[in-house]
Amino acid sequence: MKKRLILNLFEMNCISHITHGLWRLPDNQRERVNDIEYWTDLARLLEEGGFDAVFLADVLGTYDTFRGSAETAIRQGLQIPNNDPASVVPAMAAVTERLGFGITFSTTYEPPFSWARRLSTLDHLTRGRVGWNIVTSYLPNAARNHSLSGEIDHDTRFEVADEYLDVLYKLWEGSWDDDAIIADKANNVYADPAKIRPIDHVGKHFRVEGPHLPSPSRQRTPVLFTATQSSAGIEFAGKHAEVVFTGGGTKERLAELVGRLKDSAVDAGRDREDLKVITTAGVIVAPTEAEAKAKLARFQQFSDPEGYLAHFALPWDPTAHDPDRLVEELDLGRYESRFDVPSGITVGEFLAGFGELDRTPLFVVGDSEQVADAIESWLDELDLDGINLIQYHSPDTARDFIELVVPVLRRRGRLRESRDRTESLRGRIFGRGDRLPENHFATRYRGGENLPNREGISDPVLANAAPASTS
Amino acid sequence: MKKRLILNLFEMNCISHITHGLWRLPDNQRERVNDIEYWTDLARLLEEGGFDAVFLADVLGTYDTFRGSAETAIRQGLQIPNNDPASVVPAMAAVTERLGFGITFSTTYEPPFSWARRLSTLDHLTRGRVGWNIVTSYLPNAARNHSLSGEIDHDTRFEVADEYLDVLYKLWEGSWDDDAIIADKANNVYADPAKIRPIDHVGKHFRVEGPHLPSPSRQRTPVLFTATQSSAGIEFAGKHAEVVFTGGGTKERLAELVGRLKDSAVDAGRDREDLKVITTAGVIVAPTEAEAKAKLARFQQFSDPEGYLAHFALPWDPTAHDPDRLVEELDLGRYESRFDVPSGITVGEFLAGFGELDRTPLFVVGDSEQVADAIESWLDELDLDGINLIQYHSPDTARDFIELVVPVLRRRGRLRESRDRTESLRGRIFGRGDRLPENHFATRYRGGENLPNREGISDPVLANAAPASTS
Repeated sequence: MKKRLILNLFEMNCISHITHGLWRLPDNQRERVNDIEYWTDLARLLEEGGFDAVFLADVLGTYDTFRGSAETAIRQGLQIPNNDPASVVPAMAAVTERLGFGITFSTTYEPPFSWARRLSTLDHLTRGRVGWNIVTSYLPNAARNHSLSGEIDHDTRFEVADEYLDVLYKLWEGSWDDDAIIADKANNVYADPAKIRPIDHVGKHFRVEGPHLPSPSRQRTPVLFTATQSSAGIEFAGKHAEVVFTGGGTKERLAELVGRLKDSAVDAGRDREDLKVITTAGVIVAPTEAEAKAKLARFQQFSDPEGYLAHFALPWDPTAHDPDRLVEELDLGRYESRFDVPSGITVGEFLAGFGELDRTPLFVVGDSEQVADAIESWLDELDLDGINLIQYHSPDTARDFIELVVPVLRRRGRLRESRDRTESLRGRIFGRGDRLPENHFATRYRGGENLPNREGISDPVLANAAPASTS
Repeated sequence: MKKRLILNLFEMNCISHITHGLWRLPDNQRERVNDIEYWTDLARLLEEGGFDAVFLADVLGTYDTFRGSAETAIRQGLQIPNNDPASVVPAMAAVTERLGFGITFSTTYEPPFSWARRLSTLDHLTRGRVGWNIVTSYLPNAARNHSLSGEIDHDTRFEVADEYLDVLYKLWEGSWDDDAIIADKANNVYADPAKIRPIDHVGKHFRVEGPHLPSPSRQRTPVLFTATQSSAGIEFAGKHAEVVFTGGGTKERLAELVGRLKDSAVDAGRDREDLKVITTAGVIVAPTEAEAKAKLARFQQFSDPEGYLAHFALPWDPTAHDPDRLVEELDLGRYESRFDVPSGITVGEFLAGFGELDRTPLFVVGDSEQVADAIESWLDELDLDGINLIQYHSPDTARDFIELVVPVLRRRGRLRESRDRTESLRGRIFGRGDRLPENHFATRYRGGENLPNREGISDPVLANAAPASTS
């Protein structure tokens, strides 16, 4: 059977997400993200158009390293202002029945107990259409917004995240049995205390007693997304993630990453097909290739390279240096970044890539068939499973894709066709049940297995436990 | 002019909120709270029916002191399962235009920066219809769900809450100027960095750099509710609250509380009318008094006293003692509770009140005119401003009130009549602007006043500040 595409729209509750300057395109609706109708209109469009989900990115701070301040980010609307992503989901859920929601949330700053409850609530309200994009946050300003002096180092963030997930699995999978709710009206027994238990988690970073407050939602654990390409991230993804959203820089590097990610799942005792990989895709489609190219040229005129420089969180300013000098010859001071200092290229060459829309590794400009061909080749050649479609224009990018590409992909058997209105997000993506498969780490807590045993639900062990080291 | 009623429905995202056993009433919809349609149907009903707001209570743990465990609470569906209250607001907002939302959230366990963003997001999505019921949490299990050994003491919780609000006021009122958004497309300037500033809060409990991530919402600071009757709580309310939700035990005590609360606002430099007081009200109405009494009798049959015992978090079990003994003669061990040991009454007398629906201080059973008379007398005699209507049956309690009482109150000029579809919650309650009045503490931060001065937005002071003592 042909591999099916996971088709997500890449969104963020902000003005300028990743196509800087393009908020200015005529009729672009990005300035409307504060309005509830922006989201309900978008949700209807995507559901009707055959999208699997809307993927909502997030940050908890500003990009303030470029030129030593947040000025560029603020001027360009670069992810500031931004709003809480999870809060738009119930509005979108109220007007749809099948569309999924991938919500970014960080494990670094907010306590696991409340987030577990929020996600269970959203899974109830959406009838099982929620995914969680697990991130650990990287902006120094985000740390300083949360009572810290600066970022927690990368590996510690992943250690915290691993324990955070352990807490959530215990709450979601282990705290309530499926048959806990009795609703016996004659005896006024809504739920059976023998089937609901505390989790008594005592770890290095968190102590959480439980029980989980919501009843089991349709998926229990929401579909687990992560976005990563580091080594710690790949190991983390192999253990936890069902869908990994990754970039990769080049097509070759992405292909290698896909392999490493799926290997990592196998190392964690799972099957290769239990971990799907999706990537950002730039698609500019029109009835003819010439029109698509003209559209790209028009979009490009609105693109602003400085937005990309600020977004990439460069702690040095390429525009302040002689464009003919080699980057490696510059004195960049205390250079620390997510991005390596490129070698063998000049400042001018380094700058040239910023703001050019076609620099997205997976990028295609063309007519319906050309776009569909490209997508098919990504799926098959890279062993990729899906895309987060970059928006140049909201909502025209999605609408163009729906009108011009979806019918072709559908004809070619590349879309998830189910019109089942009772489908969960996990069911839709994996074509099987609503819950995590048995080979996932989280399921070890089902039925209260691997949780501390106590007599019933009395005698809390946590009251006398030693304090956790953080949080 | 006659005093107008603030008319709220008292709700909670759970099965059994405060009328224990009554979830079993025929056609009661409480078991549907996981469904999004429960909330959207309710919101439409309340908006059409003339309610000002739906008030959403919350807890972050279980009632596990009664008989030393959570068994009674779990059996009765007593606030467990429960779901996140804020998550149902966007769904209700998507189908309404005027209804307000009072959302309970605790200042004790989750960081202020993210909550400030969530509330601003909700204020944007609702176009200014959000209120926040500020609580500090009291359940020991809630503390143990958030990495603590037990409850933080009452006064410390209020000290933390005071600083928490200070952080939020800086973010909401001081971080962005009203004219910060320029949306200059020609120059790609979405916002003016000179009009957006960090808050650089360095306090005892929190350190928050900012800037606030969302742009200013319609109300900026949502309408501030608190629920209190302690001395620390009254002082806190005088400084912060716009609407205080309070019980009071008896009608006389409530009248006294109303006076103390309004005095407390005056002590804080505000006007008496800047602080409104609302209370729970039990209303059972029918076309005739006889029918209303029959309805009460029917409801009473479903009431379960044990639910109330567990809910009141009694650490001793009255049902385990001789009903003829005086309560004060019992050896109650380490008795600590929100409730005083009553003096001069027997165990049997103490028990008698539990589960009797007419024990609500403000309670009326009758026909339309009788109920309206009672409400008018509460407003005028107690100097009370409004009610949170207790639900015995969902949604019949609200529907009965809408059909039988609202028309009478409307005729008597006691309701807020505006059909202005662009009204904010603050505008609706106070009949003036959308924003906090100038005499409120929060407004001292407007325009960046009383915030640390730094050169533009660079050179973060928090990176080198001493660590905060908690959080």
